[in-house]
Amino acid sequence: MTEERDPAATPTGGVPVSRRRLLGTAGAVGATGLVVGGAAGAATAEAVREDAPTALTSLGGTAVGFRAERQQPGITTPLQARGHLAAFDLAPGADRKAAAALLRRWSATAERLMAGEPEAGDGDTGIALDAGPSSLTVTFGFGRSFFGRTGLTDRMPEALAPLPDFSADALDPRRSNGDLWVQIGADDALVAFHALRALQREAGDTARLRWQMNGFNRTPGATARPMTARNLMGQVDGTNNPKPADPDFRQRVFVGDGAAPSWMAGGSYAVVRRIRMLLDSWDHLSLAQQEKVIGRRKKDGAPLSGGTEHTPVRLDKISPEGVLAIAGDAHVRVAAPESNQGAAMLRRPFSYHDGFRPDGAPDAGLLFIAWQADPMKGFVPVQRKLDRGDGLSRFLRHEASGLFAVPPAAERGSYVGAPLLEG
Amino acid sequence: MTEERDPAATPTGGVPVSRRRLLGTAGAVGATGLVVGGAAGAATAEAVREDAPTALTSLGGTAVGFRAERQQPGITTPLQARGHLAAFDLAPGADRKAAAALLRRWSATAERLMAGEPEAGDGDTGIALDAGPSSLTVTFGFGRSFFGRTGLTDRMPEALAPLPDFSADALDPRRSNGDLWVQIGADDALVAFHALRALQREAGDTARLRWQMNGFNRTPGATARPMTARNLMGQVDGTNNPKPADPDFRQRVFVGDGAAPSWMAGGSYAVVRRIRMLLDSWDHLSLAQQEKVIGRRKKDGAPLSGGTEHTPVRLDKISPEGVLAIAGDAHVRVAAPESNQGAAMLRRPFSYHDGFRPDGAPDAGLLFIAWQADPMKGFVPVQRKLDRGDGLSRFLRHEASGLFAVPPAAERGSYVGAPLLEG
Repeated sequence: MTEERDPAATPTGGVPVSRRRLLGTAGAVGATGLVVGGAAGAATAEAVREDAPTALTSLGGTAVGFRAERQQPGITTPLQARGHLAAFDLAPGADRKAAAALLRRWSATAERLMAGEPEAGDGDTGIALDAGPSSLTVTFGFGRSFFGRTGLTDRMPEALAPLPDFSADALDPRRSNGDLWVQIGADDALVAFHALRALQREAGDTARLRWQMNGFNRTPGATARPMTARNLMGQVDGTNNPKPADPDFRQRVFVGDGAAPSWMAGGSYAVVRRIRMLLDSWDHLSLAQQEKVIGRRKKDGAPLSGGTEHTPVRLDKISPEGVLAIAGDAHVRVAAPESNQGAAMLRRPFSYHDGFRPDGAPDAGLLFIAWQADPMKGFVPVQRKLDRGDGLSRFLRHEASGLFAVPPAAERGSYVGAPLLEG
Repeated sequence: MTEERDPAATPTGGVPVSRRRLLGTAGAVGATGLVVGGAAGAATAEAVREDAPTALTSLGGTAVGFRAERQQPGITTPLQARGHLAAFDLAPGADRKAAAALLRRWSATAERLMAGEPEAGDGDTGIALDAGPSSLTVTFGFGRSFFGRTGLTDRMPEALAPLPDFSADALDPRRSNGDLWVQIGADDALVAFHALRALQREAGDTARLRWQMNGFNRTPGATARPMTARNLMGQVDGTNNPKPADPDFRQRVFVGDGAAPSWMAGGSYAVVRRIRMLLDSWDHLSLAQQEKVIGRRKKDGAPLSGGTEHTPVRLDKISPEGVLAIAGDAHVRVAAPESNQGAAMLRRPFSYHDGFRPDGAPDAGLLFIAWQADPMKGFVPVQRKLDRGDGLSRFLRHEASGLFAVPPAAERGSYVGAPLLEG
């Protein structure tokens, strides 16, 4: 998400990449395969990529550890080229015990697939055969409705209070919320689809799909070096993200050990928004108008207050013309931590494109995913501010919304959510 | 599409990769960039990739020449990770002259984007900034309805006669056919979307989107070496494709110089079918049942008559149990050229996945694209046979269909289709 390098990040071994036995060329993947997230805390693997000249040839061979870090994978993992988001609702009659069994099945399968193994048993669909793990990550979360359905309301985090309404919302409840949330990312589309199919099949009679969305990001290697992502407006997006090297990174993104409920310690809260971009309207603006709306140059993401992409934004800078260099309603001003009592979140989105709408405009935009220790100190205050004063908001429609409690990674021998479901 | 190497294929220079000036690291892309299709006839670039250890690091830097070969790009170009198919209808009042102007605009833009340049003028959306051309290809075709609308029925190829009905068809006319067809492929999803947006904007008042579909294939580098593609049934798909090295390859795939109409000499006919896979039903079969339906092993694509993937299929082989090793209704038997008077086509598909259907099953399958010199000697006889006798057909639904005349590449200084529109 950023091009900055965390010096703590180093490739580490430990996760077997066993699908390579299916490749017939074990050495080729084995020799270049990287394992990301072994013991480096919140390090992002982009740093690894930048550091390792062979990394791009290992696109398929890179494995992310399912329980290699305290948090689940897919939060600090570098953006992947392909993503699936899915929400499941428990079937009528599925209780806490059934939910626990599902999370156990899901965790076991996620760990296997992320290591490049096929599903257990002989039912694997074969869709990912030949390919390496391709940085596959699977992340599981719990929605507010999960707790009532499983008799666990006493363990429901206060942070799962419903998000407030925002004036720019046009939310479709059928594509919002849900009991269980699954985020899948991989650098190969068939590897990602394989994981989605496997998890959906394993939901069996316990849970059924409520909604499902597909997204994408740049393919690793499409740029000559790791760059901050661009969105479908063409804008550099993510420059101001909290960095793992920031002293308050974990405090902002992950739930602390003293916070309630205890099963969320080391976890995070995901706010998921399907944000359609009104690209036809946006593209009618001139380049200068677009840059004024954002507050950054399109070409390189440099703030209009001067410098290069990572130069701190100077909100008080006056231009030679005697006006604010960053307009009063510029997106970077309204979203800045300085404008929101320091509120910040880790944004890790996918773009989406689902064909076109009756008027010919693309049905496209951002699957916005924001990670924070507390939505009331992350998404909510920032979105309140954006909803009122952001010049960008007239080019956006929030069409779906979800808020999910994402517990820490599974303990060895256990599964994601066990301390909630069995504690 | 195959792992076989055409010894005639070599990387050649000639197409400037000019977006690199936007990267700020020109050397990195420039040093590893490959240019595909420079002068190697029908060679596929997979051979180049296999031959060049640095090729995977140039995922972004690989440029395909817009007019480097006689045929348009996107036919013999290796499968790309991301694809868009779109059909446009001419707007009421748009005549031959307007269509010619549109094809001229489209050709100029396709050539720029494929070389890594932004759109001409200052209206570029910026979505592809930072990235290299990423093997972008743009391919243009004409549907049967185009000729009536432009007063060119006397130049309409007989090969554009409507495809016959097949019993397994459940075609949606709104997602079928169309005056103009555009195929976009790239190894980066933002590069592909950028091209789609650019072409749609340039259609302006001349043509509007009729239908549009998104597809994907494996990402280069996800496998340790180039492999035949897999589809979403998990099956190796494309082994029996005609190979550029076959002596009759051009004759099968491209229109000969003596054929009518003359503006199609060196071109090809594309049959496009959206084929939904009934994956829930398919996945209920055992591995052995699936392999019997196909006639090949799932793991490696080897025919059930023995050998490895590229061993010729022995349709008459009797198994030790005294029955045909390849079942009478096996897909490879019914589709084989030996079963169809030698009929063959070059299949170059994308997989698709558009979420899920009301019953929870994925809306997913194959954007089947078949290239041939004459549909009556390619798709039509094979599909007639499959429609009657293929054991696979009960797991497939053909939901949309198109047939397009794809003329040869533009001459230097001209545009795709000029000999039709101006001749």
